[in-house]
Amino acid sequence: MLSKEINLGYNDEGGYFHMKHNKPGKVYLVGAGPGDIGLFTLKGKECVERADVIIYDYLANAAILAFARPDTECIFVGKHGGSSIMPQEEINRLLTKKASEGKTIVRLKGGDPFIFGRGGEEAEHLAATGIHFEIIPGVTSAISVPAYAGIPLTHRKYSSTIGIVTGNEDAKKKKSAIAWDKIATGVDTIVILMGLRNLSSIVKNVTGNGRSPDTPAAVIQ
Amino acid sequence: MLSKEINLGYNDEGGYFHMKHNKPGKVYLVGAGPGDIGLFTLKGKECVERADVIIYDYLANAAILAFARPDTECIFVGKHGGSSIMPQEEINRLLTKKASEGKTIVRLKGGDPFIFGRGGEEAEHLAATGIHFEIIPGVTSAISVPAYAGIPLTHRKYSSTIGIVTGNEDAKKKKSAIAWDKIATGVDTIVILMGLRNLSSIVKNVTGNGRSPDTPAAVIQ
Repeated sequence: MLSKEINLGYNDEGGYFHMKHNKPGKVYLVGAGPGDIGLFTLKGKECVERADVIIYDYLANAAILAFARPDTECIFVGKHGGSSIMPQEEINRLLTKKASEGKTIVRLKGGDPFIFGRGGEEAEHLAATGIHFEIIPGVTSAISVPAYAGIPLTHRKYSSTIGIVTGNEDAKKKKSAIAWDKIATGVDTIVILMGLRNLSSIVKNVTGNGRSPDTPAAVIQ
Repeated sequence: MLSKEINLGYNDEGGYFHMKHNKPGKVYLVGAGPGDIGLFTLKGKECVERADVIIYDYLANAAILAFARPDTECIFVGKHGGSSIMPQEEINRLLTKKASEGKTIVRLKGGDPFIFGRGGEEAEHLAATGIHFEIIPGVTSAISVPAYAGIPLTHRKYSSTIGIVTGNEDAKKKKSAIAWDKIATGVDTIVILMGLRNLSSIVKNVTGNGRSPDTPAAVIQ
């Protein structure tokens, strides 16, 4: 289990929590939500307002940066589909470097940092190098994007289980790491993230493993 | 598919979106997040600030009500475990009644409204009765509570699938609606919501269906 700090409730200044100014060099792994700026969290906004450095992804809404101070350093490390502008190892090094300079860093990630965002690996790296960090969860696109399309993932009458699956597996892989034979019929609602590129093989994996081809489905881009 | 409206971006007043004041009688189904007020969304806060009526649950952080106008009518319809203060049918009727009076209503639900919150049923009821409504997704406890405990639900090395399952099934039910035989080994990370009361039968369902008893597990209350 990774170390982290929890700061709840209001602080004296009327904000949502105390950022530890007496402990310089801290990284906030912040979930930026699914793209709609209105779905960013109050705490996330406060982190962005106070950050010295913001390291952000392709998936995070750039409008969030408007909350930052004019002197905040904003570094785009982008990610689009499989290709990154900056490799993960370099992002990890950047986090450590800026934190060891005593900076307060916001690492802004699309959706929720712990859902297919490699936030787990970044947190692991920070824990291993002794950098203070805190996770600020976000609204995940896995749930909110269907909600915006009017699709509840659970429903008393139709669905009591959800499966969230990456659709971004390497199609050239000999064997999928995903147990499609069980997932196809084992969960009521299946949400596949980043699945557009592999859509045909995903459909084959689902229907070929016993899921009725009549199952209602939506593709949202 | 249910009807709903999407309002993106900033409005002229510097808020996050326009509430349709020219269309009276609208319900906002708002996800209150997992309890930490800092994880409430910007849009959710704006809805609460503008609401005439707020209908809220046991699971929603009552501190959110501090954002409301002093004259906003706040109605507690609570829910704790299986028992409700107000039956679902009566909540549905209340939503329709207040909306038909031309009020702007916030229906505040713990976590995300569409994850085991019966938000789907409320949306369905509103759609059937012709009431305008909009879904404001929230940070779901299914993902954020493990994150606060330092547990990433996905990790490139360990987990590429998540299963979210209700633990609140009636233990007296003859047959579980959950395909434990597939879920126990079909998804990498299993998140069980509201599972404390049925913990022993859940453990039996998971380990009895092939999941190793050595699998790391956390119980968070």
